[in-house]
Amino acid sequence: MLADSAYGKSRVRLVTVSRHGDRHDVRDLTVAIRFRGEYDESYTEGDNSAVLPTDTMKNTVYAMAGQQTVRDPETFGLALARRFIDRNPRLRDVRIDLTEQPWGRIPIGGREHGQAFLRTGPEVRTATVRSDRERQTVGAGVKHLLILKSSKSAFTGFLRDEYTTLPDTRDRILATSLTATWKYLSHDVDFGPSWQAVRRALVEAFAEHDSQSVQHTMYAMGQAVLDSAADVTAIRLIMPNKHHLPVDLTRFGLANRNEIFVATDEPYGLIEATLVR
Amino acid sequence: MLADSAYGKSRVRLVTVSRHGDRHDVRDLTVAIRFRGEYDESYTEGDNSAVLPTDTMKNTVYAMAGQQTVRDPETFGLALARRFIDRNPRLRDVRIDLTEQPWGRIPIGGREHGQAFLRTGPEVRTATVRSDRERQTVGAGVKHLLILKSSKSAFTGFLRDEYTTLPDTRDRILATSLTATWKYLSHDVDFGPSWQAVRRALVEAFAEHDSQSVQHTMYAMGQAVLDSAADVTAIRLIMPNKHHLPVDLTRFGLANRNEIFVATDEPYGLIEATLVR
Amino acid sequence: MLADSAYGKSRVRLVTVSRHGDRHDVRDLTVAIRFRGEYDESYTEGDNSAVLPTDTMKNTVYAMAGQQTVRDPETFGLALARRFIDRNPRLRDVRIDLTEQPWGRIPIGGREHGQAFLRTGPEVRTATVRSDRERQTVGAGVKHLLILKSSKSAFTGFLRDEYTTLPDTRDRILATSLTATWKYLSHDVDFGPSWQAVRRALVEAFAEHDSQSVQHTMYAMGQAVLDSAADVTAIRLIMPNKHHLPVDLTRFGLANRNEIFVATDEPYGLIEATLVR
Amino acid sequence: MLADSAYGKSRVRLVTVSRHGDRHDVRDLTVAIRFRGEYDESYTEGDNSAVLPTDTMKNTVYAMAGQQTVRDPETFGLALARRFIDRNPRLRDVRIDLTEQPWGRIPIGGREHGQAFLRTGPEVRTATVRSDRERQTVGAGVKHLLILKSSKSAFTGFLRDEYTTLPDTRDRILATSLTATWKYLSHDVDFGPSWQAVRRALVEAFAEHDSQSVQHTMYAMGQAVLDSAADVTAIRLIMPNKHHLPVDLTRFGLANRNEIFVATDEPYGLIEATLVR
Repeated sequence: MLADSAYGKSRVRLVTVSRHGDRHDVRDLTVAIRFRGEYDESYTEGDNSAVLPTDTMKNTVYAMAGQQTVRDPETFGLALARRFIDRNPRLRDVRIDLTEQPWGRIPIGGREHGQAFLRTGPEVRTATVRSDRERQTVGAGVKHLLILKSSKSAFTGFLRDEYTTLPDTRDRILATSLTATWKYLSHDVDFGPSWQAVRRALVEAFAEHDSQSVQHTMYAMGQAVLDSAADVTAIRLIMPNKHHLPVDLTRFGLANRNEIFVATDEPYGLIEATLVR
Repeated sequence: MLADSAYGKSRVRLVTVSRHGDRHDVRDLTVAIRFRGEYDESYTEGDNSAVLPTDTMKNTVYAMAGQQTVRDPETFGLALARRFIDRNPRLRDVRIDLTEQPWGRIPIGGREHGQAFLRTGPEVRTATVRSDRERQTVGAGVKHLLILKSSKSAFTGFLRDEYTTLPDTRDRILATSLTATWKYLSHDVDFGPSWQAVRRALVEAFAEHDSQSVQHTMYAMGQAVLDSAADVTAIRLIMPNKHHLPVDLTRFGLANRNEIFVATDEPYGLIEATLVR
Repeated sequence: MLADSAYGKSRVRLVTVSRHGDRHDVRDLTVAIRFRGEYDESYTEGDNSAVLPTDTMKNTVYAMAGQQTVRDPETFGLALARRFIDRNPRLRDVRIDLTEQPWGRIPIGGREHGQAFLRTGPEVRTATVRSDRERQTVGAGVKHLLILKSSKSAFTGFLRDEYTTLPDTRDRILATSLTATWKYLSHDVDFGPSWQAVRRALVEAFAEHDSQSVQHTMYAMGQAVLDSAADVTAIRLIMPNKHHLPVDLTRFGLANRNEIFVATDEPYGLIEATLVR
Repeated sequence: MLADSAYGKSRVRLVTVSRHGDRHDVRDLTVAIRFRGEYDESYTEGDNSAVLPTDTMKNTVYAMAGQQTVRDPETFGLALARRFIDRNPRLRDVRIDLTEQPWGRIPIGGREHGQAFLRTGPEVRTATVRSDRERQTVGAGVKHLLILKSSKSAFTGFLRDEYTTLPDTRDRILATSLTATWKYLSHDVDFGPSWQAVRRALVEAFAEHDSQSVQHTMYAMGQAVLDSAADVTAIRLIMPNKHHLPVDLTRFGLANRNEIFVATDEPYGLIEATLVR
């Protein structure tokens, strides 16, 4: 009767400071852990004897961080996954999701301060490690990456029916809050530079593309990643179409030369795709 | 290379008023539509000729609402799904997600006002209709249903390791924000009363259960639904453990007789299960 | 140079359970404390010797809750204010803001369960206590009270200029998320019943009023409170106009007999007023 | 009986694109307008004849944007305020609040793209214009500016009472989400460079300060602004203390050399000050 189950801990907030003389490094992570395994008795009988409390999962995050320098979220996630698999015989597979809130250095007089930081971007870096008893897979991603282009975006020639009122447009604003997640071929990757390279490919393809639709640009962005990042085997993209509607100024005796827009939050188009090699 | 794709419209906000003399009915829905089908050319070629714009999807919601009285979200979702499948040859399957924000009537002098309403609950009612060219499946659910019990909740006898610090507890607060989704055997169901019955079974089982863990109570809640609602074939439950930690008052020379708690938002345990017949 | 300053602790989360046999009472409060006084040296010199840490403010909330049964937020706020004023010679005035998240009892078989609860409403109850060395004032309020009326709401005869496009409307949906705060004549009030009476007056006046505008209804609501609650000396109302726009269905060859609306979040009108006796 | 009133429109979303060859400029503003004046009859009598609808206020934002290039939010706010005062005889004073969501350019191959943009920072730029029939005042600000320092932050020697448990700390993380608002001497200021200069003074003072408390650093930041920006007559700072608590690793047989922290959202200290010349 119990077809599926999982349990874990979410939103474990970890901030680490590593000190190298007067230059500090700050990492700011939010970690979620999810166990699946032979835990049916805890549901059906209330028997907790095989259940590692989610409180212990949280403690493990802090204890592991105390024994190693936390660098890339992917590496830290791999270490966590390995430990959980090694110590919990009933655990069939574990998933670790990590979100890094990025901090840049405060610039002072042309140089970066070693111990003072400033949050950059609504965007965050994500990583996902999954492990069963045989193998570990590593993925990475970006979320809340807000991008907008004010040229080379059209949407024409679409299917029309009796409820269609949208006109063709050859020059619209295209804006989205990008969520992308990709999978690495192995876990022997230099995760920081790889993440930077994928992000750059995404953003540059978005900027350069001659867009016929969100779908069209999304595909070009995915292709750019697969073309440039040999380590990446698949990429999934989710792009809400954050509509910017031209305001009809003729009602006020004025012309709108495609310059004045109202940005809307809802409703929004939502476009998704997964590209694999 | 394009392994998977989908597109649609989210957060279409629809409020309807039906008038029966001086008694009005208000329905307040948020609708999301998701298409999957033979749309690869829109991604790979920028060819939109088969693409129904998401703007038209939105228009369809309003046009359909103008032609029928919107009652249960499930029924309205079925009508939307049918129309989209009928008119779009490239559409392989469509998913309609509906969230109903509930409004109760304002009571005045012992009776309910016919035309004035008050939002009840953080909780919302959800429905999901999926349809391909062969068949339609209907599901329903509840979200943001905040429930708390101040007795009959223990968590003891769990696995311990070197990082475990949690003590056994025989009398804790158990609180959650319940998300439940269930599937109906057919779409020939009286959806309003069925939804009420499932919700009641969930809430009553939560209240009455002698809980050994969130897992244990979740299973009892799912069982109560399957036992009492013959129309339901499967139910999925997601329950964050909204921890209420007893405050150590001994630091202030005071005793805490299990009466004073700090409610915490993060981190939180997250427990999930699916029960099928 | 320091013209004004204040410091305190926000979002102190306190949940209390009082047990009367098998009937428990739960109170769920969020408390904020704000000190103003002779604390300039902490700003100008970094001299903390007169500064009660905000961490101690938080501890005081829990310690005070451990020594008395927390009933009305107003009474608990008064006790906190008194203690802070008594113990901190540099404190000129203190403000305590309390928000109560309401929990109702889960009904089972026609009666209320004694130990199982369900969050009611997005609405919350608020209270504010201010105290200096001479006197204490007590206010109360309600927030996130979502109300909607589907009749007796017009907006006509307004000022027009060259940018006005809004048509007169004699039958629109009026919806708001009410924030109301009121002041009591004394702190010798039975706060629970008084709060209920004010809330009822607000909601009933909203339901019954023949509205010419949000302003007009707001004023009627404030008047209803001052007319019925002798203890209340002033009331402040804030009402965003949560616009529900009729959808133009004529584009689809359909009529909209004032039944189909799109609910919008932004932009919104924002109307405010304070009524005093 | 009507002691005070105001009405207006909030969350008017305006995005403008100005095109200079292949280099576009994007401004992304959220505007709120608030009227105070002789509008009592609209409340007391339901007489709307002097009421400019909030819908017209919104239209005015778009119409004004269509007639001028929107550059600094302060300048655009001044133009709006002037128009409203000029055209509405009953309007006593108007307040315009503007929030700018900043977009940077996407870099490609070492140079900035002219037509593709990326949202920078959770931080936003704010401006406030107030005008009555005599004069206009202009303020500016920053919000959601998240800053953190990992050295030179202590909190010691504070007042202790029976509920104090906080230990002295000489080396803690200091983190905040800065809200600052300041007033300009005149409205004849080059608002863009002035805003940049104030922001830089705030951030650099935060980074460099030898902090004895949030209060102490806040005052140093305000002073740095008043010392460096001759145009600024007063500044108000609001700094939540976003607590980063060292994790006790001794429970796991480990040492925490001030490297491992849990970031918490609630409760939080809240420190405020206004500095004037």
